[in-house]
Amino acid sequence: MAASSSTMGKVIRCKAAVAYEPNKPMMFEDINVAPPQMSEVRIKMVNATVCQSDLYFWKGKDVAKLFPRILGHEGAGIVESVGSNVKGIKAGDKCIPVWQAECKKCSKCKSSRTNICDTFVFNWGSGLMPSDKKTTRFTRVSDGKPIYHFFGISVFSQYTVVDEACVAKINPNADLSKICLLGCGIPTGVGSAWKIAKVHPKSTVAVFGLGTIGLAVVEACKVSGCSRIIGIARDEEKLARAMEFGLTDTLNTKAFNKPIEQVICEMTEGGMGVDYSFDCTGDPGIIYSALECCTPAGGVSIILGLVESSQVVKFHPGVLLWGRSWTSGLFGGYKGRTELPELVERCMKGHINLDHYITHHLPFSKINEAFDLLNQGGCIRCVMDYDK
Amino acid sequence: MAASSSTMGKVIRCKAAVAYEPNKPMMFEDINVAPPQMSEVRIKMVNATVCQSDLYFWKGKDVAKLFPRILGHEGAGIVESVGSNVKGIKAGDKCIPVWQAECKKCSKCKSSRTNICDTFVFNWGSGLMPSDKKTTRFTRVSDGKPIYHFFGISVFSQYTVVDEACVAKINPNADLSKICLLGCGIPTGVGSAWKIAKVHPKSTVAVFGLGTIGLAVVEACKVSGCSRIIGIARDEEKLARAMEFGLTDTLNTKAFNKPIEQVICEMTEGGMGVDYSFDCTGDPGIIYSALECCTPAGGVSIILGLVESSQVVKFHPGVLLWGRSWTSGLFGGYKGRTELPELVERCMKGHINLDHYITHHLPFSKINEAFDLLNQGGCIRCVMDYDK
Ligand SMILES: [Zn+2]
Ligand SMILES: [Zn+2]
Ligand SMILES: [Zn+2]
Ligand SMILES: [Zn+2]
Repeated sequence: MAASSSTMGKVIRCKAAVAYEPNKPMMFEDINVAPPQMSEVRIKMVNATVCQSDLYFWKGKDVAKLFPRILGHEGAGIVESVGSNVKGIKAGDKCIPVWQAECKKCSKCKSSRTNICDTFVFNWGSGLMPSDKKTTRFTRVSDGKPIYHFFGISVFSQYTVVDEACVAKINPNADLSKICLLGCGIPTGVGSAWKIAKVHPKSTVAVFGLGTIGLAVVEACKVSGCSRIIGIARDEEKLARAMEFGLTDTLNTKAFNKPIEQVICEMTEGGMGVDYSFDCTGDPGIIYSALECCTPAGGVSIILGLVESSQVVKFHPGVLLWGRSWTSGLFGGYKGRTELPELVERCMKGHINLDHYITHHLPFSKINEAFDLLNQGGCIRCVMDYDK
Repeated sequence: MAASSSTMGKVIRCKAAVAYEPNKPMMFEDINVAPPQMSEVRIKMVNATVCQSDLYFWKGKDVAKLFPRILGHEGAGIVESVGSNVKGIKAGDKCIPVWQAECKKCSKCKSSRTNICDTFVFNWGSGLMPSDKKTTRFTRVSDGKPIYHFFGISVFSQYTVVDEACVAKINPNADLSKICLLGCGIPTGVGSAWKIAKVHPKSTVAVFGLGTIGLAVVEACKVSGCSRIIGIARDEEKLARAMEFGLTDTLNTKAFNKPIEQVICEMTEGGMGVDYSFDCTGDPGIIYSALECCTPAGGVSIILGLVESSQVVKFHPGVLLWGRSWTSGLFGGYKGRTELPELVERCMKGHINLDHYITHHLPFSKINEAFDLLNQGGCIRCVMDYDK
């Protein structure tokens, strides 16, 4: 760990993975990281993983296509230094950088109904620091030109600077090589089951898509005692893998000549469908199937997959008439600073088994291999070690 | 009131309004009403009103187009006689026939999450008795041919037969000339605010469409102490009328050159939109505006309007991403037998002022005039008296 006394207030030169163009390997190169401004925190990253959204933006599927950019939004580290106005977190604290910011002061942050913050409105398209919306803290060594941030946290750098609204201070005994998983996918899945759907014992559930988010939904439903957890995918290996996370039933969509929602309804009491369904695919057709497979009588369908901007979902409101709901949510409804540390505690107690999400390990310098692993499938999470 | 001793077990000949073809005046003629079967109740109607759904089916806008049929689903009466298996209700009891049946025995009836009943699945297209799904209790005097029922209750007859699952026994002191309004539109609106949305003090609300359901939403939100109740319509008279029910702001869509959802967002704190929105129009474009005008941070939009079967709503799931919900519900989420009587009590105590929904009175024999009044607009509810 870098001694805060030696680097505080100074520019730090360190390694980062810089994406220069869509779909091209990132450059693992030296960059300059400026000191944190008044409300900001500089973090020495210890571990990180690659999430599907990194791939999405790396492939340039978003509208903004900002390059050069330092991606990464799922990791954990240790505070190196803090800006003059920062309270409640100090050099040496273990933390998770959270892209879902929480100012703790606005009316939404004070409300229990939402984890959205009015002060830090999440902006996929911006690559600038939220404090001024004008500057970056990353610059190239060669010519001093700015490098864009990502989701406000850019964890694919040995040092990153984030607003204090984006720092969850966590238990000092946390093992960062595991807890780094709580930066995005797992809280999104677990929170969607526990906080958004609020599944309960005996709930019946269908989960479409069994990547990290889907698996986390499955595990959270199992922990809540749901009686039926049906997993739907096209890949036998993914289905088999998901059984270990708590599925009670697997459905391979390829195996049926009738709509999968019909198959699911026929599996449930009275043929009415499940209590909760979760789309973790982002496919408009599957999103509609997920709605239709949940019971018209109060069923809730939660959309978690990222849908390409050119696509739409069509429906007749009659499908909602009996009381179905369609909803979604960011980061599983968790408030990053005040609620994520509780999830860290639950994971440290083993309520959620982080180990079985970790299928690969790599040194940070091999980040392009980590991208390839996730892109090819078969990998749930590859934990990168920043000290190697 | 007919003495139950003289008519019990016998066919009753009485007046009814029989719809023979779409859009043609109903025939006000003698029909025969069979005695109730084992699980059924025969009711002497005292008062009824016409609801928009009566117009919809009378115009033949539904797929089934069943004729001849006795329409009507918003009324109140007195039990004339009951079938041999009926418990808990007897001749002389005041009641509201409810189309949203409640068997009280199935798992859904026992659940607090829904007012849907597994035993009596609501079937818009059926005109038969739910006990056997084969027969009717109404026949023509001239040739004995069956006349179809409507929504399981057909209140536009001096006597009607309904399943006990469709009878809400109410306070014997209720004034049926007012309480008859609690058969459909008002519970739908009030329950959508209180039971589905669960509005709370200081909630901000937008209501699109200000017919009976919209007005009932407005009044319920006012009773709940909502801080901002914005009414949206194209008709100045309707907007002015709705002020008396509790609107704080009126918006005439004709007055703006920008999308109405934008106007509404600009009226709210931080420009984020309202907490709850209610579509009472059934127009797909307005349904989407209603979603967009509610805050992405946990806003809930409730679809109450009946949408023609050929129409669809299109959306990109990104509009739900921050945690908006889209939902709907039948009969305001009220369980007809166990919960409607409580609403009757609240109305008798004046929590909801039924008087200001009643704009017209007519004898039952002039029912075609009552249809014209509702069709032309200007009428909220026309109460018909069955003894005149
Ligand atoms: Zn905030
Ligand atoms: Zn992610
Ligand atoms: Zn039931
Ligand atoms: Zn109605």
